[in-house]
Amino acid sequence: MGKTFLPNNSATSTWIWYPGDFEIWLSNKMQVRRTEREAVFPPLWKYYSPDPLVTFQTEVDIPEQDEVKIYSEGTFQLLVDGIQIYGLPKSITIPAGKHKISFKVYNQEVLPAIYVEGKYVKSNANWIVTNEDKLWIDETGKAQQSGTPWIPVGSWSFNSPKDKPSEFRLATKPWNAKKIEKIGDGKLIDFGKETFGYIKINGLKGKGNLALYYGESREEALDSEKCETLDYIHFDGNQPKEYTHNKSKAFRYVQVQADATLEYDSISMLHEYLPLEYRGEFKSSDDLLNDIWDVSAYTMHLTSREFFIDGIKRDRWIWSGDAYQSYLMNYYLFFDSPSVERTLIALRGKDPVTAHVNTIMDYSLYWFMGIYDYYLYTGDTSFIKTFYPRMKTLMEFCLGRRNKNGFLEPLEGDWVFIDWADGLAKTGEVSFEQMLLVRSLEAIAVSADIAGENEDQKQYQKLADDLKEKLFDVFWDKEAQVMKHQYIDGDVQDTVTKYANMFGIFFDYFDEVQKQSVKNKVLLNDNIQKITTPYMRFFELEALCALGEQEFVLDEIRDYWGGMLKLGATSFWELYNPSDKGEEHLAMYGRPYGKSLCHAWGASPIYLFGKYYFGVKPISAGYKTYEVKPNLGGLQWIEGKVPTPNGSVDIYCSTKEIKVKSSEGVGILIFKSTTKPLTNSGSITALGEGKYEMKIEPNKGYQITYKAL
Amino acid sequence: MGKTFLPNNSATSTWIWYPGDFEIWLSNKMQVRRTEREAVFPPLWKYYSPDPLVTFQTEVDIPEQDEVKIYSEGTFQLLVDGIQIYGLPKSITIPAGKHKISFKVYNQEVLPAIYVEGKYVKSNANWIVTNEDKLWIDETGKAQQSGTPWIPVGSWSFNSPKDKPSEFRLATKPWNAKKIEKIGDGKLIDFGKETFGYIKINGLKGKGNLALYYGESREEALDSEKCETLDYIHFDGNQPKEYTHNKSKAFRYVQVQADATLEYDSISMLHEYLPLEYRGEFKSSDDLLNDIWDVSAYTMHLTSREFFIDGIKRDRWIWSGDAYQSYLMNYYLFFDSPSVERTLIALRGKDPVTAHVNTIMDYSLYWFMGIYDYYLYTGDTSFIKTFYPRMKTLMEFCLGRRNKNGFLEPLEGDWVFIDWADGLAKTGEVSFEQMLLVRSLEAIAVSADIAGENEDQKQYQKLADDLKEKLFDVFWDKEAQVMKHQYIDGDVQDTVTKYANMFGIFFDYFDEVQKQSVKNKVLLNDNIQKITTPYMRFFELEALCALGEQEFVLDEIRDYWGGMLKLGATSFWELYNPSDKGEEHLAMYGRPYGKSLCHAWGASPIYLFGKYYFGVKPISAGYKTYEVKPNLGGLQWIEGKVPTPNGSVDIYCSTKEIKVKSSEGVGILIFKSTTKPLTNSGSITALGEGKYEMKIEPNKGYQITYKAL
Repeated sequence: MGKTFLPNNSATSTWIWYPGDFEIWLSNKMQVRRTEREAVFPPLWKYYSPDPLVTFQTEVDIPEQDEVKIYSEGTFQLLVDGIQIYGLPKSITIPAGKHKISFKVYNQEVLPAIYVEGKYVKSNANWIVTNEDKLWIDETGKAQQSGTPWIPVGSWSFNSPKDKPSEFRLATKPWNAKKIEKIGDGKLIDFGKETFGYIKINGLKGKGNLALYYGESREEALDSEKCETLDYIHFDGNQPKEYTHNKSKAFRYVQVQADATLEYDSISMLHEYLPLEYRGEFKSSDDLLNDIWDVSAYTMHLTSREFFIDGIKRDRWIWSGDAYQSYLMNYYLFFDSPSVERTLIALRGKDPVTAHVNTIMDYSLYWFMGIYDYYLYTGDTSFIKTFYPRMKTLMEFCLGRRNKNGFLEPLEGDWVFIDWADGLAKTGEVSFEQMLLVRSLEAIAVSADIAGENEDQKQYQKLADDLKEKLFDVFWDKEAQVMKHQYIDGDVQDTVTKYANMFGIFFDYFDEVQKQSVKNKVLLNDNIQKITTPYMRFFELEALCALGEQEFVLDEIRDYWGGMLKLGATSFWELYNPSDKGEEHLAMYGRPYGKSLCHAWGASPIYLFGKYYFGVKPISAGYKTYEVKPNLGGLQWIEGKVPTPNGSVDIYCSTKEIKVKSSEGVGILIFKSTTKPLTNSGSITALGEGKYEMKIEPNKGYQITYKAL
Repeated sequence: MGKTFLPNNSATSTWIWYPGDFEIWLSNKMQVRRTEREAVFPPLWKYYSPDPLVTFQTEVDIPEQDEVKIYSEGTFQLLVDGIQIYGLPKSITIPAGKHKISFKVYNQEVLPAIYVEGKYVKSNANWIVTNEDKLWIDETGKAQQSGTPWIPVGSWSFNSPKDKPSEFRLATKPWNAKKIEKIGDGKLIDFGKETFGYIKINGLKGKGNLALYYGESREEALDSEKCETLDYIHFDGNQPKEYTHNKSKAFRYVQVQADATLEYDSISMLHEYLPLEYRGEFKSSDDLLNDIWDVSAYTMHLTSREFFIDGIKRDRWIWSGDAYQSYLMNYYLFFDSPSVERTLIALRGKDPVTAHVNTIMDYSLYWFMGIYDYYLYTGDTSFIKTFYPRMKTLMEFCLGRRNKNGFLEPLEGDWVFIDWADGLAKTGEVSFEQMLLVRSLEAIAVSADIAGENEDQKQYQKLADDLKEKLFDVFWDKEAQVMKHQYIDGDVQDTVTKYANMFGIFFDYFDEVQKQSVKNKVLLNDNIQKITTPYMRFFELEALCALGEQEFVLDEIRDYWGGMLKLGATSFWELYNPSDKGEEHLAMYGRPYGKSLCHAWGASPIYLFGKYYFGVKPISAGYKTYEVKPNLGGLQWIEGKVPTPNGSVDIYCSTKEIKVKSSEGVGILIFKSTTKPLTNSGSITALGEGKYEMKIEPNKGYQITYKAL
């Protein structure tokens, strides 16, 4: 039986572990799979490890004797009601009644995990676990225990005994070549579009060497001297006839060169992917936009793997800033909560905190913001309750790196990223970083409240309020009505960039007057340094959408993302500079094929279309309440779905008609009409100036006739 | 080629790792090998893990091109002068001149380690390592690096490529049965004395089950229902004829019961041990004492293994209080520095500190004291320099657990051990714990100075001074002139125990008047609760020796340790109560064979004889200066050696003659004589009242004739 990838529902047994440890182990494994021309290329930051010795515990009250089977990753000590059970049993009989069952499991190589299955006793998310059980026996033989830090176990979708955490693999499916071309004595295989997985050699015979030169572009695969990834394989004649290579790569093309002593029939591949349902949908009256959404969704899917990674060729790492965007896109495409949790945990690791997440100051801060969004979209509080202590240690690390002015300023080892942008000032006190810190403090204040840490909540909220005030005192230019970029040695520098200005918009930190000033003087001002990465385009376009510039933004999307499609992109890129020519589009980091042509941050139209054109977003946690504020942006019609925790908001909007149906929560539909709108159900409230709102109850179809402005 | 166990000398290559990580990995493996009747019994405290991803680096300046072979535990990324070398090379050519070589190694399962061997480029203790290299590439392809916490690598004695850290094994040698007895259908094998290792079955044939019931005593091995350790082995007929069992145990006896379908010729064992040279020696005119020293040395050797453990049957764990005594005994027997280092590291683990060492308050404090002694006896500063940050985080943990009075008082999860003693008060503020904290603060102040942390040195010394003053203010009874035991809610309790009083003696915290009062009113007072563990007898007898009561102490040793020998002990026990009868001696923790009959803390005569009868101890670090103050304690003569870092102090002392020869440092011989002493070399200074001293230069034989008091 293969893995299902469905989270356990607690009614059945599942493999359990110390929370976060599977994710940390898997992320270590995954990230070190990056290679450059056969050289392993591990991350530059600290790796943590699972706790090798943990104790799982449950208390049960069962109506009859239960035969309980035990499966374990690692050796274990079993105590039933405090009494050690001798041997290393494969099953145990638990008598009727109340019992306390503990497994202390040791596994240095992978991670300690158990799967326990009886009629009543089942390992699931209700068990607790500790990494120091402090259970000792005094000289009289009496057991003593105190100070044990019990927390809920971690689990995911390992719902059968055979389905061990240590043997985790993504799903695979066969994928055939689309085109084959002779290149010297070898071949160039085109798989039709960007893909990820393992090359298969079918009908392989003989001994000798074979080289695989991978390319996201044709040029790269043909350039055996400079392509970023390759594999040299030696066959001794004992290989299977249907050979699947054991190293995964990202590519559309592969050049195969084999010794004459080797023969094979054909080359195909095994596509490796995380099975995810496309719960979000988008169609519109503009086919180009539909293509952009489709390629965005494909890009997002390719980069949604064991974790949300940046790019599938390079780096194959988990970067907090990139992942933050993946979370947001995920809420409008897959709404896969486990992927968000896994990624947040992998990024955070364990204690002690000795550096920023990914060593980048802004990336620590996105991590907090990601947790807030996770709560807002999913309504899940258990993640925060379990990981609040790790939120706190990271926040204390960040706060400990403030300078005497109370601002974040890079200390040794702190990388300030912000964006890839020529000559961008990153030293001293940068307004952008302070703004993210305010937002992070707000996020941890909410989290402290959820975790029941009321004193922390007050303290963090006050820090947020004070810092926000100071941010405006120092960086907001009252004359120019814009946010300045940098403050050095007590002097505000005369630089304005888009970063803090655009975040201030959708963080809602500006009043209406400020917003308009920022829009005109910064966002739409050609004299301000342009943003060239899809990464920051994400936020720039979000800010413009938040200001109601949907039509303008659609043009930008057609131009920018459409520009990549015109160049033949089958997934969206790490960077796109419309003024580049030919192979310049492939180069980055001083290398001819350094650029990643499938990068998560390239998929932002998914998010923009869902949140700012369908206009769907949660107002309270988990879509208990939400807003639907459709905006055509000049299109004739848009139609699709936005996923919610247990269903979706289905929407159609044309210039004359709005149709909404949702599966949960209470929505407010907000729209403008030049005529008095009519509805088949519910009641429309006029708000004046042609604005209307209407309450959306779940599982009812609403059909409104109106006339768009 | 087998392992040599000789520390690397830096002139040749050796396997290197992140400091402490091998020790943590090995201690995890070792401590989980404890079993009780086939049940795994892991420690009750938190396990740490090696860092799975570390970067090793060296800078070389070589006169000619060097062919360098690379051996690695784990995959690696190799950079030479910042340039990534493609592939995963097995060797590399380094050109003549200056070069920076970095290996980033990933190993999740064991620990990252490398061995690099060229003519000039060799991996050794001079390399540095980091667990977060923070080496990133900006968008232009330029490498950036800052904030990397480089520290010196760890190494031990893995001096050949094949001798991998992951394959570490202690040495073994065959050991034959001394006596065989028929027990029902089976046999009882007596190996003659306490031993440790693997049972061998010679000439084994057939299929079936075989049971091994181990016993440190005959009674235990015969009691298949209650013996503490056993192994059930199933043979399918495919086992080797000469079968060595794969689980190690401690025993003198083993009862073997096999199915009739199994045949074998004989049972022997493979003794497993750490090869150590007995550098200390002791002989005297009293054969009982000679036997006691020999059995102490054997006990000490059996418990000196991968680490200094408490007992070889049970717990096979590393306990800081027990280890503290092993360090001290080691300085008078093996003087094996790597064993002390390994044990200190294993006890400390990594950060964060979330509980006391072994969860015991006093055991955190012994850890600091152990480091101070290590420095004093060996003169080594590199250990402190490398591990000072971990000293600091543990001390901050301890200081963070003081109450409002500034005293240590147990918080939830803090186990106060002190000693196994009936009804011993351990709640509230106990003087003993405060005294250990003062000593620990003194130890870390010295260490801070060595580590170059001058501000820390001042701060810790002040904390030590202030706490010492407070200790005396609160606990010293000015009227009774004794140290009280306990302080609860502002009231000193009317309890006096030996603990703080005896430690105050050899810590030299009392003045002469106080010492005499403590001696008479506490140490020699029969109304004060008696000490029954060899553990605290160690310190009690040390205090009496420090007060000059060598003759009294010898009688105690003859009685107590001699008492165990009379009962047939071949190694010394965890606990000995002279009033117990028969099998009562074997019981503990409510189990009939719960007591460990080979326990490190039973070996203290080694330490007492060396330090207080030979009277040899370092005065300044590493025996640069030392004292020799022989004391016959009523014996006719004593003769032997006390090891020093690079040699020994050889001494003979009778009532008429003292002979001293040493290999290093400058000693002061101190003795008393009723006649004017004469020497063959050097010059004797009279100090008055029959007391004399004389300087001992290295490598000269001194022969003094005198007349003992």
